[in-house]
Amino acid sequence: MLSFAKQVNIREVGPRDGLQNEAAWVPTEQKIELINALSHTGLKYIEAVSFVHPKAIPQMRDAAEVIAGIERKPGVIYRAIVPNAMGARRAVQAKMNEVEIFLSASESHNLKNVRMSVNDSLKAAQEVATILGEANLPFDAVIATAFGCPYEGDVPSERVMWVSDRLLELNPQPARLTLGDTTGMANPVQVTSMVEEFYHRFPGIKLGLHFHNTRGSGLANVLAGLLAGVTDFDASLGGLGGCPYAPGASGNICTEDTVNMLHDMGVQTGIDLGKLLECAKLAQSLVGHELPSQLLKAGPRTRLTPFNQN
Amino acid sequence: MLSFAKQVNIREVGPRDGLQNEAAWVPTEQKIELINALSHTGLKYIEAVSFVHPKAIPQMRDAAEVIAGIERKPGVIYRAIVPNAMGARRAVQAKMNEVEIFLSASESHNLKNVRMSVNDSLKAAQEVATILGEANLPFDAVIATAFGCPYEGDVPSERVMWVSDRLLELNPQPARLTLGDTTGMANPVQVTSMVEEFYHRFPGIKLGLHFHNTRGSGLANVLAGLLAGVTDFDASLGGLGGCPYAPGASGNICTEDTVNMLHDMGVQTGIDLGKLLECAKLAQSLVGHELPSQLLKAGPRTRLTPFNQN
Repeated sequence: MLSFAKQVNIREVGPRDGLQNEAAWVPTEQKIELINALSHTGLKYIEAVSFVHPKAIPQMRDAAEVIAGIERKPGVIYRAIVPNAMGARRAVQAKMNEVEIFLSASESHNLKNVRMSVNDSLKAAQEVATILGEANLPFDAVIATAFGCPYEGDVPSERVMWVSDRLLELNPQPARLTLGDTTGMANPVQVTSMVEEFYHRFPGIKLGLHFHNTRGSGLANVLAGLLAGVTDFDASLGGLGGCPYAPGASGNICTEDTVNMLHDMGVQTGIDLGKLLECAKLAQSLVGHELPSQLLKAGPRTRLTPFNQN
Repeated sequence: MLSFAKQVNIREVGPRDGLQNEAAWVPTEQKIELINALSHTGLKYIEAVSFVHPKAIPQMRDAAEVIAGIERKPGVIYRAIVPNAMGARRAVQAKMNEVEIFLSASESHNLKNVRMSVNDSLKAAQEVATILGEANLPFDAVIATAFGCPYEGDVPSERVMWVSDRLLELNPQPARLTLGDTTGMANPVQVTSMVEEFYHRFPGIKLGLHFHNTRGSGLANVLAGLLAGVTDFDASLGGLGGCPYAPGASGNICTEDTVNMLHDMGVQTGIDLGKLLECAKLAQSLVGHELPSQLLKAGPRTRLTPFNQN
C-alpha cells in the first residue's frame, strides 16, 4: 500500500516558465486569454509572469500589461518571479498575490543564469525580501539545480540545505521553499532523501517541488515527492517550455499529465481536467507547435474508444 | 526511505512490439542489425519477433529469416510472441529461447485484437502450451489490458486474477506471468494494489510488468511496481512503437529512459547505457522519424554541459 496525502496543490507555471522558453513572441492579449482560461480550471496558483529585464527575457517584457489585463478570480493566487529589487518593486506595483525569488544551488548555474555568485544572489534576495516585507507580500524561494547542475553534475545535499537555510532566514512570512530540478536530473531515490533531509532540518516548513521531465522521470519524481509528504508541485500546461541545455528535450512536467495521474490515484487537485485540456489546446495554438503533453494526444483514460466488431 | 530490489531485468521489446507499430517496412537485414546491436548492450531478454499471420502484422512477416540471421549471444534470451498453435510451431522451429503467449483481460479488446473470445483464447493457449511443453520451450503469459481497456474502461482485478489463474494452470515450467498496460491506463496506486493482490493470490510466481507511456506516467508505474517487489519490466528502445488507439501518442515506455532512471536510483540492470543509446540512435535512423525517447535528446545526467562565462 502506498501512503500519501489525498489532496495536493498543482501550481501552474506555463504562462511564465513555459512561455519564456518560446522563441516566438506571444502577444499580450493572448497571454491574458491563457491566464484567464487557467483561472477557471480550479487551479489555485498561477505563475503568471516574471519581472525581469526585458533584454534578459524578451517574452516577459509585457509582464505589467499582462497582469493589469487579466481578470483576477477570487481565491486564485497570481504569482510573479523576480530576480532583484527592481523586479520586486514592479511586482509590488502590479499587486501580485505572491512573489517567487530564485537562485541556484550550484555556483556555475547561478553565474550563467543571473551573472552573480550565489552569495551575491543571497544579498540581492535580502533586498528583495525587505521590499516585499514592507509591502506585506508573501514570497516563496525557489532553489534551482537542487537535484543536479548541468555544469557541475551532483550538487551535495548539504549545499542545498545551506542555501535553504540562508533563504528561509530572509522570509518574514510563514516560511516556505521550493526545490527545483531545472534540468531534469532528479531521480526518485534522490527526491526521497532530499525531501526527508529537508523536513528533518526544517520541520514545519512548507516545501514545494519543481520538476522537469527532461529525462522522462518527471512523474516518477512527483510520486516520490508525494510519498515523502510533499503536497505542492509545479507543472506547466501542455509541458510548455523546453530545456535550454538540450534542444528538443522536454521542459517542465506537463500539468494535465500530472493532474490525470494524481486523479487516477485518488488524489484531489480541485482542477477540472476537461477545462485544463481546453487550456492546453489553447496554449498549443498560441505557440503554434506541438507540445510534449501526452494527454493532449491520448485523452484521459475515461475517454473510451467506441467498440465495433469488424 | 524507499525500499526496493537493487537489481532488475529490463526486457527489450523494441524489435517486436515497437517495430510492429511502424507503418513503413524495415528490411530484414536492418532488423538483424538492430537485434545484434542490442545483444551487445548487456540486455538479457530481447523480444525479437512475433510469429503471427503475415496479413495481421505485415512488419513481422520475415520473423523466421530475422531469427535465422541474428548472431545469438550466449546468455541472451531471445523471445518470440505467438498467438496460436501455428505460431508456436514456428517458434519451436526457429529455436527461440522463450515464447510469450498473450490474451486480453477484457473481452472487447481480445475480440478486436485476435477476433476471439477470452475463453477461445484460453483454449488456443492450451494448445500452444502443449506444443511448447513437448519442445521443452519455456513460456511467459502476457495479459493485455490488465490495468484498463480502451473499450470498457476499468477491468476488475478479480477478472485479471481469474485470467492469471487460467494461464498459470497451463504452464508446466516454473510458471510466470506478465501484466500488460497496453494502452497506458495504469496509475501507481493501481499498480501497487494489482501487484500486491497478485502476489497474495499466487505466491512464488514470477511477475513481470509491461507498461506504456501513453499518458506520461510510465516511469511512475515502474517505480510503483519496483516498490511492490517486481523485478522484470518490459521496455522499448527509443520508445519505439506508438499507441494504436491514440494517433501520435507514446507507446511502450522507453528503454533508455527507464534504464537511466533505474541506474540513477542505484538499481542495476547490467546494461551499458552508452551502448543502449547507440542502439536507440540506430533504431531512430531505421524508422526514419523522431522517437519519443527523452534521453536521446537530453543525454544521461552524467553528460555535463561545458561551462563558459560569457
